[in-house]
Amino acid sequence: MPLITFQPGLRTARVARGTSLLDAATHAGVTIRAPCGGEGTCGECRARVESGAVEQVARGCLSQEETADGWILACSSRIAGDVTVRVTEEETATPAQIVSGAAEQRPDGTAGSFTGRIPGREGTPPTTKHCLQVEPGSLESPFSDFERLTRAVERSIGIKRVATGLHVLRELAAVLRARDGRITVTIDSSDEITPAEIVRIEPGDATNQQVGLAIDVGTTTCAVSLVDVARRRVFGTAANYNGQLARGADIISRINYARTSERIDELRSLVLHTLNGLIDQLCVAQEVVPEQIDSAVIAGNTTMMHLLLGLPPEHIRLEPYTPTVNRPPRLRGGTVGLAMNPEAYVRLVPGVGSYVGGDITAGLLQTALPDEGDQIRFFLDIGTNGEVVVGNGEWLMACAASAGPAFEGGGVSCGMRAGTGAIERVRVDPDSGRADITVIGGGRPRGICGSGMIDLLAELWAADLLDPSGKLQSSCSNGRIRPAKGSHRNLAYTVVSSADTETGKAIEIDERDIQNLLRTKAAVYSACAVMLNSLGLGFDCVAEVYVAGGFGRFLDLEKSIAIGLLPDLPLERFTYLGNSALAGARAMLCNASAWEEAGRLAERMTYLELNVDPAYMNEYTAALFLPHTDLDRFPTVKAGLAARRSNSEGTPP
Amino acid sequence: MPLITFQPGLRTARVARGTSLLDAATHAGVTIRAPCGGEGTCGECRARVESGAVEQVARGCLSQEETADGWILACSSRIAGDVTVRVTEEETATPAQIVSGAAEQRPDGTAGSFTGRIPGREGTPPTTKHCLQVEPGSLESPFSDFERLTRAVERSIGIKRVATGLHVLRELAAVLRARDGRITVTIDSSDEITPAEIVRIEPGDATNQQVGLAIDVGTTTCAVSLVDVARRRVFGTAANYNGQLARGADIISRINYARTSERIDELRSLVLHTLNGLIDQLCVAQEVVPEQIDSAVIAGNTTMMHLLLGLPPEHIRLEPYTPTVNRPPRLRGGTVGLAMNPEAYVRLVPGVGSYVGGDITAGLLQTALPDEGDQIRFFLDIGTNGEVVVGNGEWLMACAASAGPAFEGGGVSCGMRAGTGAIERVRVDPDSGRADITVIGGGRPRGICGSGMIDLLAELWAADLLDPSGKLQSSCSNGRIRPAKGSHRNLAYTVVSSADTETGKAIEIDERDIQNLLRTKAAVYSACAVMLNSLGLGFDCVAEVYVAGGFGRFLDLEKSIAIGLLPDLPLERFTYLGNSALAGARAMLCNASAWEEAGRLAERMTYLELNVDPAYMNEYTAALFLPHTDLDRFPTVKAGLAARRSNSEGTPP
Repeated sequence: MPLITFQPGLRTARVARGTSLLDAATHAGVTIRAPCGGEGTCGECRARVESGAVEQVARGCLSQEETADGWILACSSRIAGDVTVRVTEEETATPAQIVSGAAEQRPDGTAGSFTGRIPGREGTPPTTKHCLQVEPGSLESPFSDFERLTRAVERSIGIKRVATGLHVLRELAAVLRARDGRITVTIDSSDEITPAEIVRIEPGDATNQQVGLAIDVGTTTCAVSLVDVARRRVFGTAANYNGQLARGADIISRINYARTSERIDELRSLVLHTLNGLIDQLCVAQEVVPEQIDSAVIAGNTTMMHLLLGLPPEHIRLEPYTPTVNRPPRLRGGTVGLAMNPEAYVRLVPGVGSYVGGDITAGLLQTALPDEGDQIRFFLDIGTNGEVVVGNGEWLMACAASAGPAFEGGGVSCGMRAGTGAIERVRVDPDSGRADITVIGGGRPRGICGSGMIDLLAELWAADLLDPSGKLQSSCSNGRIRPAKGSHRNLAYTVVSSADTETGKAIEIDERDIQNLLRTKAAVYSACAVMLNSLGLGFDCVAEVYVAGGFGRFLDLEKSIAIGLLPDLPLERFTYLGNSALAGARAMLCNASAWEEAGRLAERMTYLELNVDPAYMNEYTAALFLPHTDLDRFPTVKAGLAARRSNSEGTPP
Repeated sequence: MPLITFQPGLRTARVARGTSLLDAATHAGVTIRAPCGGEGTCGECRARVESGAVEQVARGCLSQEETADGWILACSSRIAGDVTVRVTEEETATPAQIVSGAAEQRPDGTAGSFTGRIPGREGTPPTTKHCLQVEPGSLESPFSDFERLTRAVERSIGIKRVATGLHVLRELAAVLRARDGRITVTIDSSDEITPAEIVRIEPGDATNQQVGLAIDVGTTTCAVSLVDVARRRVFGTAANYNGQLARGADIISRINYARTSERIDELRSLVLHTLNGLIDQLCVAQEVVPEQIDSAVIAGNTTMMHLLLGLPPEHIRLEPYTPTVNRPPRLRGGTVGLAMNPEAYVRLVPGVGSYVGGDITAGLLQTALPDEGDQIRFFLDIGTNGEVVVGNGEWLMACAASAGPAFEGGGVSCGMRAGTGAIERVRVDPDSGRADITVIGGGRPRGICGSGMIDLLAELWAADLLDPSGKLQSSCSNGRIRPAKGSHRNLAYTVVSSADTETGKAIEIDERDIQNLLRTKAAVYSACAVMLNSLGLGFDCVAEVYVAGGFGRFLDLEKSIAIGLLPDLPLERFTYLGNSALAGARAMLCNASAWEEAGRLAERMTYLELNVDPAYMNEYTAALFLPHTDLDRFPTVKAGLAARRSNSEGTPP
C-alpha cells in the first residue's frame, strides 16, 4: 500500500490506492478541516503536493491558477502512490469551559446560573433512588435474594414488576448482606414500552447522592450540565465545539461526509470525544466518578442524534426526508458510549422529523407554547439551523430554515462561541468609527459571539458605515474600513486592532462575513413570515416570542429588530431563553412529567416543509436587506431611520 | 514479583508473594486438576518443589512421609520467592463429540436422534421470524423508518408495543430499502416483565432459517443442541466435559474454589469456553455462522447457572442456602458471553432453590408429572447431583441428594462420559470371570460410562465376584481380581487388559471405585425412600418412574434394580429419558407454552431439605449394600438370589 506523508510533522499512513487524501489524513491522525463535508466546495482542505502525485478527481472550488500553482483539495484527490503533502491543520479548538450559565441566562441574569436551582414544576425524576429494608433469607421462606429484593421493591415503592440486569445480580448477595438488608436501589421508571428497571444497588442509605447529565448536542456547540437530580441543582455546565466541526460546518455537509460506515463511526467518535471530555471535566471539578452518573437526557437535532447513535443519516437529506427514528428508545449509557454508569439509561428527547428535532421539543418546555388557551406564541431557535414553532394550546406548527452557523461563530472569520474572550457587546462611535467592546471574562478579545455580531451590524448601519445591502462604506470610517487581505473588492471593518487582541491578530469583519450574517437573519425572519402567512395570520397577532440560541448571555432585542432578525413587535413580548435545549433537558432529567410532556409535544407538532413553498424564496430574498426591503414591516426602525435622516439633513455638511 | 517456573514445559509466571501455587499455575497457563476445589482434601494437585521454596499453609491430605519426600499441595502452598515446581497436568479432555443422540435416546431408540424431530406439542416458539411489508416513507405521511416498521409489526403480527436496540436501528434504513420495504423481523416475545423485542432485521423473506440453541450445563458434562427452530428439528448435538472440572469435581468443591471474584471469572470463562467450543463445532458442521443464532434456552443446576452468569455462589452452601436468583431474567447472548447474535436473548430455565435447579424443571417437561390427576409419579435425575421429584397433578415435591459424579465417569478411575470409546454394556461370565463388553462407536474401549458401571456391578455381584458390601472376591476370578497398583488392601477387577484398550492402559475397577458407585446409588435410593416416607406413602403407590441422567444410550432397568439404584417395581412402570434437561430445553426453545409451563412448575414445586431430616442418614447407610440391607424391599432381587443360591447348592462342589 502506498505511503502517505503529511507535513508539517512528518506523520505517515499506509492506505489503499484510491483512498481520498482526506481519509488518509484521518488514518495518519492529521485533522484537516472540511466544513463542506468533502464536497469540494469550501476549499478549506487545500493542500500542496511536495513529492509524488495524487489523482485529482475534481478541481472543486480551486481556480485554474491555484491548480497550476500545485494546490489540490484533499477531499477530491485519490491516492495513486507514495506521496508527501503539506496541509493546513485544524487549529486546536479553544479549550472547553465550565461556564457560569453563559449562553443560558435570561437577560435578568437569574435563571440557569452556575449552581442554581432548576426552574419548573417540582416532580419525580424519571430515575429515582430509594432506601429499602430487604428481609433476610430463611429455611422457612426459601426465597432467593432477587425474589426478596423484588418483594421489597413492590412493598416499599409499589412497583410490581421490576427488571434488572446481570451487573445488579452479580453484586446482590454482597450488597444485601453488607448492612443487614438495608440497601439503596436506583430505579429507572417504566416508559411506554420497557418496564421499570433497577440500574444500581448500594449498601445502606445512599439516597443523598444522585447524579445525572443534561446534554445538548448542537451542530456547532455541545453543552453538558452535571446535575444533582434529587435536589434539582446544577453542579456545573461546560461547553465546547462539537468535534465533528472538522468534518463539515452544517448538517448537510456532515451528512455528505457520512457516506460510509467507517465515516459514521468516525463522526460518532468525534462527538463522543467532545461529550466525554466535558463530562470528565465536570466530574473532576465536582469530585464525582463518571460511573456514579445514573441518568442522562440528551437533546439535539435529528442529524446530531443520528450521528451520536451511529445511524446512517443520508435519508435525512434525500426526499422524502425520512429519518431512521424520531423517538429513539431509551438506551444504556454503555451502548451510547457516554462516560457514565454503562447500565443506566440515556433518554433522547423525541423530535418531529428530519429538520425539527428533540432540541426544539426540549426548548418548547421552557416556553408557554404548550399551555392551554388561544394566544398565539412563537418560539425561535437560532442555532446552526433555525427552527421556528408557532402555536397555541390547540395546535403547534414547526418549520426549519437553514440559518447557518453565523451567530454561533461559524462562517464568519472573526466569529466564535460565547465563551471567555468573546466580544459580546459592541458600540460604534459614529464620529470616530471606533468600536467600544465588552468581552466575556473581561480580558483581551479573541473573536465575536452572536450577540456581538448583532450589535456590530446594527451599530455599523446606524453609524452609516454599512448600507442596507451589506456593503461597507469606507468614506467616513477614518481608515477603519479597508480592503480585506487578498481581495481589493471585499472591504473589511477592523473591530479590534492586532495590538489589542489575545491572539495578536486583528479582529475584522468583511463583506463576505456580513453576507453570511444577512443570510442567517433572512432565513429566520422569512421562515416566521411564511409560516404565519400560511396560517392567514400576521405578526401583530403574536402575543409572545421566545428566542433561543447560543448568542451569548445577553441578546439586544432592539438591535435584533433593527437588523431585521426579529419582527418589529413591542419589546415586552420577547423573552430571550439562551440555550433552551439544555435547560429543557435539565427539566426532563429532574421531572418525569416534563419528559412525558415532551413526548406529547413532539406528537402534537405539525411540520411545514419550507423548501416546497414557493413563497419562501421570495420572502427570503426580500429579507436579505437591513432590516428588510419592505421598511413598512419595521415601523419603529423606519421611524428611527427617518429621525436619523432628518438629524443629518438638519446638520450642515 | 517472584518468578514461578512449572515443569515439565518450563512455563513461567510472575505473581505476588502469598499467591497460591494453584493460582500461579493458572497465570502460567498450566491446568492442575483440583477436584476438591482447593480445599486440600483430594490430593490431586500435588507437586514437587525442584528448586526454591514455597510456604506450606497446610499439609492437607498428604502423609508425613509424602511431605518429607518433598511433596506439596499446590492449593495449600503460598509463593514466597522464585521457585521451580514439577506438576502433574490435567490430561487433555477427550475431544467434544457430535453425538447421534447418545445419552439422550429412549430405549426404543426413536426419540432425540441426530436430526430428529423434537417431540412434544406443536406451538409457537418464544422467538419467531416474520416477513413484513413496510410502506415507504412519503412527504405526505412523514413517519420515520422505525415508526413505519412498528406500525407494520402491529398490523401484521398484532404486537402493539415492540422494543428494539441500537443494532437494529443502525441497519434499518438500508434493510428497509434493499427489497422495497419487504423485510424479515426476528421477534423475541414478551415475558412477565420485559416487552417483545425485535432482535434482528433482514432484507426480503428470510423466514426459512431460524437457528437456536438448547444447552444443558451439567456439573460434569455440558451438552448443546443446534436446533432448526421453525421446523422443530435438531441439526446436531455435541457434548463435552465442563471445563470447570479442573477446579472441582462437584458443586460444593466448585463453590469452595469460587472464593474471589477473579476465580468466579475464571470458572465463568472455563464453562463458556466449553459451551462456545461446542457451538462452534456444531456451527461448522452445519455451515451456520454463530451470529445467526437468535435464541437459546439453558438448563442447569443452580450452582452452574450462578457460575455461568458470574454470580458469587457461596450462599448456596451456607445456611439458609439462599441463591442469588432462581428465575433469572432473560439476558442477551452478548451479556452471557455465548457465541451467538449478541443482541438476541438467552432464557435460563427457572429453578426451585439452591439444590433443585432449572435442569430439573426442564426435565419434568419430558414427563407426565405436570399432568392432571392423582396418580403418583417419580422423576429421578441422576447426574453429579441426584434430584428427585415426586407428585401428581396437585402437588410436586423435590429434594436433592449429593449423588456424586460416579455414573458420569467422575470419582471412578476408569469412568468416562457416554461417548465414543465408552463401554456401555458388560456381561461377566461366571465361570471364566471374563467381561464381554459393548463399546460406543464399536472400536477399542477407553473407559466405562454409567450404563456400563451398572451392568458391571450387577454382573460381578451375580457372578459372586463381589459381595453385598462391595468387596471383590478374588478366589474364583481366574486372576482377574488382584491387588490394585499401590495398595495391597485395595483389590481391582480387570475389565479389559491393556493390550485391548485404545489407550494401552488396562481398564480396571477397584474397591474404592465401587464404594463411590455404592454411595451414589445409596444417595439416590434413600432420597426416594425418605421423600415417600415423609408423605406417608410407599413405593407400591408409584404409578410411573422417570429416570434421567447421562448413563449412556441404554439403561438396563433390571440391573439398576438389582444393585438397588432403582426401587423394585414392575419394569413397565419405568421410563428412561437420558438427558432430560437438554430435551426439555429443546422443547422450550421451540414452544413458548412449554417455557411458560416450566415457570409454573418451578413455582409449584416444594423443596424438602434432606440434610435436616435425621431419617435420611439411616436410610442412606442401609442402602450402601447390594441391593440393600433390607432384602425384603427388593422382592424380585431376593427371589433371584434365592434361586441362584439353590442352584449353586444343588451343584456338587
